[in-house]
Amino acid sequence: MAAYRLQKRCDEEAVFVVEGPKMASEAMASGFVIKVVCATAEWLSDYADSMVAEETFEVSPAELERLSNFKTANQIWMLLERNRECRKWNAESGLTLALDKIQDPGNMGTMLRTADWFGVRHVVCSRDTVSCYNPKVVRSTMGAIFRTKVEYVDLPRWLANCNMPVFGASLQGKSIVGRDAASLNEAVLLIGNESRGISEEAMAQVTDPVLIPNIGGTAESLNAAVAAGILMNWMTK
Amino acid sequence: MAAYRLQKRCDEEAVFVVEGPKMASEAMASGFVIKVVCATAEWLSDYADSMVAEETFEVSPAELERLSNFKTANQIWMLLERNRECRKWNAESGLTLALDKIQDPGNMGTMLRTADWFGVRHVVCSRDTVSCYNPKVVRSTMGAIFRTKVEYVDLPRWLANCNMPVFGASLQGKSIVGRDAASLNEAVLLIGNESRGISEEAMAQVTDPVLIPNIGGTAESLNAAVAAGILMNWMTK
Repeated sequence: MAAYRLQKRCDEEAVFVVEGPKMASEAMASGFVIKVVCATAEWLSDYADSMVAEETFEVSPAELERLSNFKTANQIWMLLERNRECRKWNAESGLTLALDKIQDPGNMGTMLRTADWFGVRHVVCSRDTVSCYNPKVVRSTMGAIFRTKVEYVDLPRWLANCNMPVFGASLQGKSIVGRDAASLNEAVLLIGNESRGISEEAMAQVTDPVLIPNIGGTAESLNAAVAAGILMNWMTK
Repeated sequence: MAAYRLQKRCDEEAVFVVEGPKMASEAMASGFVIKVVCATAEWLSDYADSMVAEETFEVSPAELERLSNFKTANQIWMLLERNRECRKWNAESGLTLALDKIQDPGNMGTMLRTADWFGVRHVVCSRDTVSCYNPKVVRSTMGAIFRTKVEYVDLPRWLANCNMPVFGASLQGKSIVGRDAASLNEAVLLIGNESRGISEEAMAQVTDPVLIPNIGGTAESLNAAVAAGILMNWMTK
């Protein structure tokens, strides 16, 4: 099972790893197919009856440490199938989130978590955006990975063909503050790379450049996940 | 110099470490006293003339790796004095950010960066909040550490005596959406711990419980730094 610490192996088999009791409970409630469970006696005594998995192994804490992607293993390691038509993909919001070359797993997971909060169920990513199945991404989604449809596409082409207004953060943009969300019902919010922003090819598809006013006047930029959160709040309220 | 990898040593001497060319440039522009610079020949050839430091050492990349708090060292390591009356502490915004038991360095740094963006220059923290001089915090502030007054206090007592309305996120709160920022000119925004939220003692001092509407209805919570960003946006616009 330790081979699944390699992202390549997980990609080849179209599976992903979930760790810890909190994420395991989310996984069990999600309807995703659970292929393998490796868990301590303690976790199994609480959850074995409520769990459906193709294979289950009781492991020692030391064995679990060897499997884990994190410094500290936490009772349960699960291997899930990636592909599932999720019932909850019917969006509450008409907003689609588009991510252009996001690199940091924490930012990626946090953006999926925020999208989940605002009812944004569809996330479209450039092919060089970090995998949503990266273990650090999965952990920081806090369960949103089970409720969000994430696609990896040729992003500039997708944006060109989406037939929706594309909002993108730009220093030349118009302030988002006070914008009426009702007018933004079917739209795309495009977020760029942490240090370089939106790429030139994607920016060419932005129809509505927007900005979050820099009131302090001293900071160069906002963190990508914070900016995405503020913009999603304006575009879904 | 490697002893300064220990937070305790930095605390005792009231100093902090800054790494990498970007943060070094911010430090040089900040007016903070630079005690020691350890840098590669490459960095020194570009910046030695524009820099004022009490001691400067040219080091090899291997020596720099041994000093660094990060996996990859980056040209320059600096030791700065903590205490400085910062000219920029005159707040553009009447908002004060209060942090109750924030643990994650990335969240802490991101909140200081966001405060800087919104002109919030005063941050008050419970004593058990992560140190703003933690190297990971410093790095994720992206320079805001040089423009923000951060204090560690008995937070419930500070809130009780601050003579300002205290806004705190609560599921029993009133939606922040549509709130008029003008009425929030002199106020405190209180953000709680990543997993447990605002502590009971601090919550007792909240005069205006607020919430960010959970439009999706499936996520349990927002990331603390994202929630802080959305609330600061409403309270400073």
